[in-house]
Amino acid sequence: MTKIRLNDTTLRDGSHAVRHQYTEEQVRKVVRALDDAGVEMMEVSHGDGLGGSTFNYGFSKTNEMDLISAAVDEAKNTKIAFLCLPGVGSAEDMEEATKRGARACRIATHSTEADVSIQHFEKARELGLETGGFLMLSHRLDPAGLAKQARIMVDAGCQCVFVVDSAGYLIGQEAADRVKAVYEEIGGEAQVGFHGHQNLGFGVANSLLAVQNGATQIDGTLYGLGAGAGNAPIEVLATVFERRGIDFGDVNVKAVQDAAEDVLKPMVSRLPMMDRGSIVQGQVGVYNSFLLHAERASERYGVPAQEILAEVGRRGYVGGQEDMIIEVALALQGQN
Amino acid sequence: MTKIRLNDTTLRDGSHAVRHQYTEEQVRKVVRALDDAGVEMMEVSHGDGLGGSTFNYGFSKTNEMDLISAAVDEAKNTKIAFLCLPGVGSAEDMEEATKRGARACRIATHSTEADVSIQHFEKARELGLETGGFLMLSHRLDPAGLAKQARIMVDAGCQCVFVVDSAGYLIGQEAADRVKAVYEEIGGEAQVGFHGHQNLGFGVANSLLAVQNGATQIDGTLYGLGAGAGNAPIEVLATVFERRGIDFGDVNVKAVQDAAEDVLKPMVSRLPMMDRGSIVQGQVGVYNSFLLHAERASERYGVPAQEILAEVGRRGYVGGQEDMIIEVALALQGQN
Repeated sequence: MTKIRLNDTTLRDGSHAVRHQYTEEQVRKVVRALDDAGVEMMEVSHGDGLGGSTFNYGFSKTNEMDLISAAVDEAKNTKIAFLCLPGVGSAEDMEEATKRGARACRIATHSTEADVSIQHFEKARELGLETGGFLMLSHRLDPAGLAKQARIMVDAGCQCVFVVDSAGYLIGQEAADRVKAVYEEIGGEAQVGFHGHQNLGFGVANSLLAVQNGATQIDGTLYGLGAGAGNAPIEVLATVFERRGIDFGDVNVKAVQDAAEDVLKPMVSRLPMMDRGSIVQGQVGVYNSFLLHAERASERYGVPAQEILAEVGRRGYVGGQEDMIIEVALALQGQN
Repeated sequence: MTKIRLNDTTLRDGSHAVRHQYTEEQVRKVVRALDDAGVEMMEVSHGDGLGGSTFNYGFSKTNEMDLISAAVDEAKNTKIAFLCLPGVGSAEDMEEATKRGARACRIATHSTEADVSIQHFEKARELGLETGGFLMLSHRLDPAGLAKQARIMVDAGCQCVFVVDSAGYLIGQEAADRVKAVYEEIGGEAQVGFHGHQNLGFGVANSLLAVQNGATQIDGTLYGLGAGAGNAPIEVLATVFERRGIDFGDVNVKAVQDAAEDVLKPMVSRLPMMDRGSIVQGQVGVYNSFLLHAERASERYGVPAQEILAEVGRRGYVGGQEDMIIEVALALQGQN
């Protein structure tokens, strides 16, 4: 049986849910707990990847390079990874993160724009990093189109292409078909991964389907902490995979459950949930990290967040267009 | 295409999550919102069904018959149902609920004990009620065994047998196989229903699979309010079913989303979630309404709730054995 790797992205995707306010001590606690639990890879960066600490995406409380250093210092076995979006994170950022001890990277692009990742993969290979590629908002392409984009990443040096359901939009078969198509295109040459969100309640179910359709890397976060309705909770993934007899290495299920409850939960004041805003994101396919931006705009401009998100969906905005949220709020305000 | 009926059980299964403290005004608000949204059936009773307001199950704040009356008074189109567990609710309770205006009932037994429901179905038909049958903890039987129990209910006069995943234990295919087997046994004579919980994150996914395997009644609750990790959220079910082109009558998806956010959420201080206790329930198959009982015993006896629940799972207790939770806590306390 193929071995599956459970990746934890509490300290990257989860960063959205805490508005990028992680402290070094929090990062150390999470790494210690999951390293002890046998989790083999953990991603640490600003929620929007290296260089994300900006006015547009929201400023980090702590320099992400210091968080990476802390994570590397704390990790005994787990590999520390970072996320990088071309146009946000630079080659210099990648060098610095590698200098701090990161050993894997994930290069993320909108699902139709894999070609902008080519130089970053070259850089990553030059730095000796394990490479992953994120095809974000992957519901925007049909399975065949997504497979073509995956091919571009693999040809550039990507070792695992992730079908990333950034809006929690995919429902069961819609996720399975995409994973299968990507697997058929790149399987044998590179791995396939899946990164699920909970907006329509399919984070865990889609992850299981992904494994059944060829994925060998699955992302999760403690308590599902993450953008929008949150990610597939890693403690639930571990519990489900164990029941289904899936080999996911030496991860201790109970230790992961305990890490969620005893380590992560006490540090977070607001856990993500399937609330109206995030359900609408899943319904119309809006990038999950827009949720808190839309809520802030809602407070400021007196327009319901779910209406802002629905309009953002109609306009088809993608990651990087956070600044347009305010424009949408203003336009809706004008209509009311 | 077959029409699916979405049933709401916020005011019955959801009652567990508020420790049976619903007021008449709260019931009216929820019924008004979901009646306006086009939901065709709503269940109103103590969480453990008629007569559940006891020391063993927890006392209701308001007499459930008065809650049923209020719901009936408020409902313009939606049919008000009640739950009844043989041995807890009596024939007299059923008569009284019918007198108050309830027009449907659901008779619930442990999955292996459908035969104890026979007299209750006879009574229900005599009272002119629509009938549903709940096979609780349905993971405890294989599909073929469950189908045999469903047959007993149908022969007694049950019009819809529900595969009830009372522990949120079932994972995808495990739910689909049970619905399919029940459908093959009773389809054409009676309907099949599915009642999902979220413990392992499969409440919505299993409900969709249930529809794809013959179920025509699906239970949900606003915001997933319910025992354990909560139920499949009805606003998410509606959103997902709409995308999949499923006919679920004239239910207005946006109105259900709004009811969850604007009506239900403000009245609840603690929403159910996939926390450690409820994940363990799904992992080992413990009746969901045991969660708050175990948490109370945990506080009183100083034993972790998840350990109590795991031991309850090992001992195989079923609904009605709430009093044994304290015994388990005492036994674990003795070991520490």
